[in-house]
Formats: sequence, structure tokens, C-alpha cells
Amino acid sequence: MNEKGIAHTTDIRVRYAETDGMRVVYHGNYLVYFEQARTEMLRSIGLPYAKIEEMGIFVIVIEAHANYRRSALYDDLLHVKAMVREMPTNRIKIEYEIRRNNESELIVDGYTLHTFLNSLSNRPAKPPKEFTELMQKYF
Amino acid sequence: MNEKGIAHTTDIRVRYAETDGMRVVYHGNYLVYFEQARTEMLRSIGLPYAKIEEMGIFVIVIEAHANYRRSALYDDLLHVKAMVREMPTNRIKIEYEIRRNNESELIVDGYTLHTFLNSLSNRPAKPPKEFTELMQKYF
Amino acid sequence: MNEKGIAHTTDIRVRYAETDGMRVVYHGNYLVYFEQARTEMLRSIGLPYAKIEEMGIFVIVIEAHANYRRSALYDDLLHVKAMVREMPTNRIKIEYEIRRNNESELIVDGYTLHTFLNSLSNRPAKPPKEFTELMQKYF
Amino acid sequence: MNEKGIAHTTDIRVRYAETDGMRVVYHGNYLVYFEQARTEMLRSIGLPYAKIEEMGIFVIVIEAHANYRRSALYDDLLHVKAMVREMPTNRIKIEYEIRRNNESELIVDGYTLHTFLNSLSNRPAKPPKEFTELMQKYF
Repeated sequence: MNEKGIAHTTDIRVRYAETDGMRVVYHGNYLVYFEQARTEMLRSIGLPYAKIEEMGIFVIVIEAHANYRRSALYDDLLHVKAMVREMPTNRIKIEYEIRRNNESELIVDGYTLHTFLNSLSNRPAKPPKEFTELMQKYF
Repeated sequence: MNEKGIAHTTDIRVRYAETDGMRVVYHGNYLVYFEQARTEMLRSIGLPYAKIEEMGIFVIVIEAHANYRRSALYDDLLHVKAMVREMPTNRIKIEYEIRRNNESELIVDGYTLHTFLNSLSNRPAKPPKEFTELMQKYF
Repeated sequence: MNEKGIAHTTDIRVRYAETDGMRVVYHGNYLVYFEQARTEMLRSIGLPYAKIEEMGIFVIVIEAHANYRRSALYDDLLHVKAMVREMPTNRIKIEYEIRRNNESELIVDGYTLHTFLNSLSNRPAKPPKEFTELMQKYF
Repeated sequence: MNEKGIAHTTDIRVRYAETDGMRVVYHGNYLVYFEQARTEMLRSIGLPYAKIEEMGIFVIVIEAHANYRRSALYDDLLHVKAMVREMPTNRIKIEYEIRRNNESELIVDGYTLHTFLNSLSNRPAKPPKEFTELMQKYF
């Protein structure tokens, strides 16, 4: 196992609002679960996303991908793992794995790719120094 | 019938994403349909909401109410009627009636109550002059 | 203070997905927070909602009301209190109060009114015996 | 240009509910726009998705991908093009392109990959005969 990188798991309980007429989680909502997992991953390493925005930087999504392998149901307790496995450059890739409580099989996996934006000018930006220095500790 | 006031009906097709595990529209999503209907009502009288925001004013929701009478299903074509029946002051009340295509029975009715906010200071504001003058034509 | 009834508070972290262009929680999403809070309230008294559905009963929403008093922001930790203050009959009223972490002022309050439906016939039903007996312990 | 295949464009107006704190459409909501566009594409060729479900078949999403190239704003009128460019087998791939009214640049593109499920048994199924025969007209 590669010891480098960041991994953090967030528990998310499926809301009724998030299911659809097939009685399973609507596929689009997994991107919201991904968001919550990466938010908690950033918080876990001491850099809450809200703090990055306070530095005048938006971290935007430029690509998202999900593989749907099984269904999650209302009230399921999901473990959503967010991982950074490559040192971020001007881009950061975050990978995700979603499993149900006490199960080893994947429900969904996927990734999101992000870049940085100056929140005033709306133009591409470098990641904040605090972000890069923090990442270097993990790679 | 009172001839005063504004009424405008918007057609909304129910998306799969908007249904829930009971195979009907999730109750919270009707507030989104209300929003779309009042947006189109404002556009129909020549004052798109986006234009109000350009004047530096947010129209915020301070109260929302919905009565759920019947269920709407995936792919139903809904007629969402938005009505202003009282001349707005510093507040505006908008009422809604949702029916399915070709049916007279109500599916949902309700209302939202709004005030105006200066979008820079985030403080209470008077409605823009254009808004008030426009409303006076209907009352 | 009335000692009767049920009250349970659930912590909910605001997701980016739940904010809107005014940078605050979209008003319709509070109904989703209400749902999560009543789900956790039912779980806290030993009757998870999923279990009620297993008994062949849907608990549907027939009325929802929200008063928006302040705004909640991205990443806010909200305390969402769900309360049953009157012994349910064929209807159950659940009231809600939402506050931000460490603040006493209300952000949103409101209520939902529910009836019971036979999930096979889709017709009105009495609440399950287990539900009524459980409620009687609190009133 | 390949003349084979299916293409259909649906106009979608961005709702306030669909924007986020960056004042742009939340990235997860584009999957909902994809859904609406493929629903309307199926309707346009005479096979509404609701009719497929009536045949006892769910068309489920097994993969979704989106590239976010530009931002869409509140009240933007989006043209969402859904395309089938390869004859479906047990799988169907649908591709999407989203542009703003009167602009040639892409805002988002992506695809979804689908399989068929028996809605009673929840097990993999072949596409309905009506579906396959209809598709053959386009390839």
C-alpha cells in the first residue's frame, strides 16, 4: 500500500429527499455526497474549505465522474471515502469510494477534478500557499 | 371574481430527480416549482427577477406554506399558477395553485411571503420604484 | 415548561449544494432539514421511519410551513430540533426550530402535518399500533 | 457528419434553487439537466421513458461523466442536447452538450451509460423489443 496521500471517510445518512421513484438514491445526488466527503477531508487536515474561500480562492469542479455499481436506499448509512493520491499541482484530483455500513462491496466510486479561481476576478489562480504547503506534508 | 391582481401559469414537467421513494414528487420540491412560477410571473409582466437583482435588490422569502392535497408523479405536466392578489407594500405575498394537465382538482396550493433586501448591505430595503410602479398598474 | 411530548435535536452541516446564488441556504432546503430531523427524532424513540414503512404504512406530508428569520451559510453547523407537542391522532404535527451552533436566535422555525397511508392501497390508514402505543408513553 | 443516430435539444431555464454560493449552477445539477434532456429525447422519438417503465423495465445509470467548461448563471436559458451516436446493445450511451442561448461555446459536456433492469425482479434485463426496433430505425 502506498502510504502517501490523504484519505478521510465521512458517514452520510441517506435522506428521503435524496431517493427517487426507483426507491434508491438518485444518481446525481452522489456528487453531493462526494462534495460533503471532500469538505470533511479538508477539515480533517486542518484546512476547511470555507477558510480557502476566505483567502479569496474558489476551488471549482472541472470534471466529475461516477461509476454506479449498486444501489443505496433510504436511511442507509453510507461511508464516503475521499482520497487525494497524487500531489496537487494547479489541479487537484479527488477520488471517492462509497460503501454501505458493514459491507465491503462498492456502491459508487468516482472522482472529481478541480482547479483554483480568484473569487474576485473569476480568473484562474494558483492554489493558496497554505494549501500547497499542507499538501506537501502528505506527499 | 376580482379582476385586480396578477396571475400567470407556468408549465413544469416533473423530473425523475424530483420524485422520491414513494414514487411521487418530494414535498420540498414544490417550493422550487413555486419559485419557477413566480419567476415566470415576473417575467410575464416585464420585470424579470434577474433585473431586480441588477437594481441591487434581493427579494427574499420570509415565509412559505404548502398544502399537499394529491400527489404528482414522474413526467406529469403540472400547471403552476402564481398570483399576486394584494398590492405589495414592503412585503409581497404570492399565492400558488398546482394542477395536473387537464384536471381541475388541486394537487398543491400555498403561498410565499417576501421582503426586499439591499444586496450590498444585506439590510431591509424598499422595493425598487420600477417594481412598485408596475404593481400599481394591476391594483 | 410542559414536560409532555417529544423533542430531539439533530446536527446538520450545510452543504455547498444546499446554498443558492444569495450565498445562503436555499429556502426550500429547510424542508429537507426538517425531514432529517424528524427521521432522527423517530429513531431516537426507537421507531425508525424505515420500520414504519416495513409495516406497510407511509407517513405523508399534508402541510408544511416555514418562517425564515435569519440566513444560514455554507458550512454552518445547524441544530435542528424536531418536536411533537400534541398527542397524534390520525394526524401528527411536528414542529421545528433551527439554530446555528452556539446561538440562541432562531434561523428558521416551522411545522409539518402528516397523515398515514396504506402503502399498497395508497388509501388513508390508521397509524400502526406500535406507533400509537409508543406515542402514548410521551403524553 | 455522420447522419446516423439520434439528437434532440431541450431548453432548460436555470432556477435559483439550482445555483450555489458561487452564483453559478451547482455542478451536480447538470446531471439533472442531462436527465431532462434524455427524457425529452426519448419522447421526441415516440417512446417516453414513463412508457418504458410501464413495460416493466427500469433504465438505470451505471456511469456518468461531466466536463465543466464554463459557468451557467441563474435564469440562463440553456440548450441541452442529448445524443445517441452508437446503436444500443444491452447498454446505451447518451452524450450531452450544454450551451447557453445564442452562444457556440460549450458550458458542459458529458455522457451517461445505462443498462436495463427488470423493475419487479431488480435483475438485469434486455431492452424492450419496442425500444430496440425503434433504435434500429436510426442506425
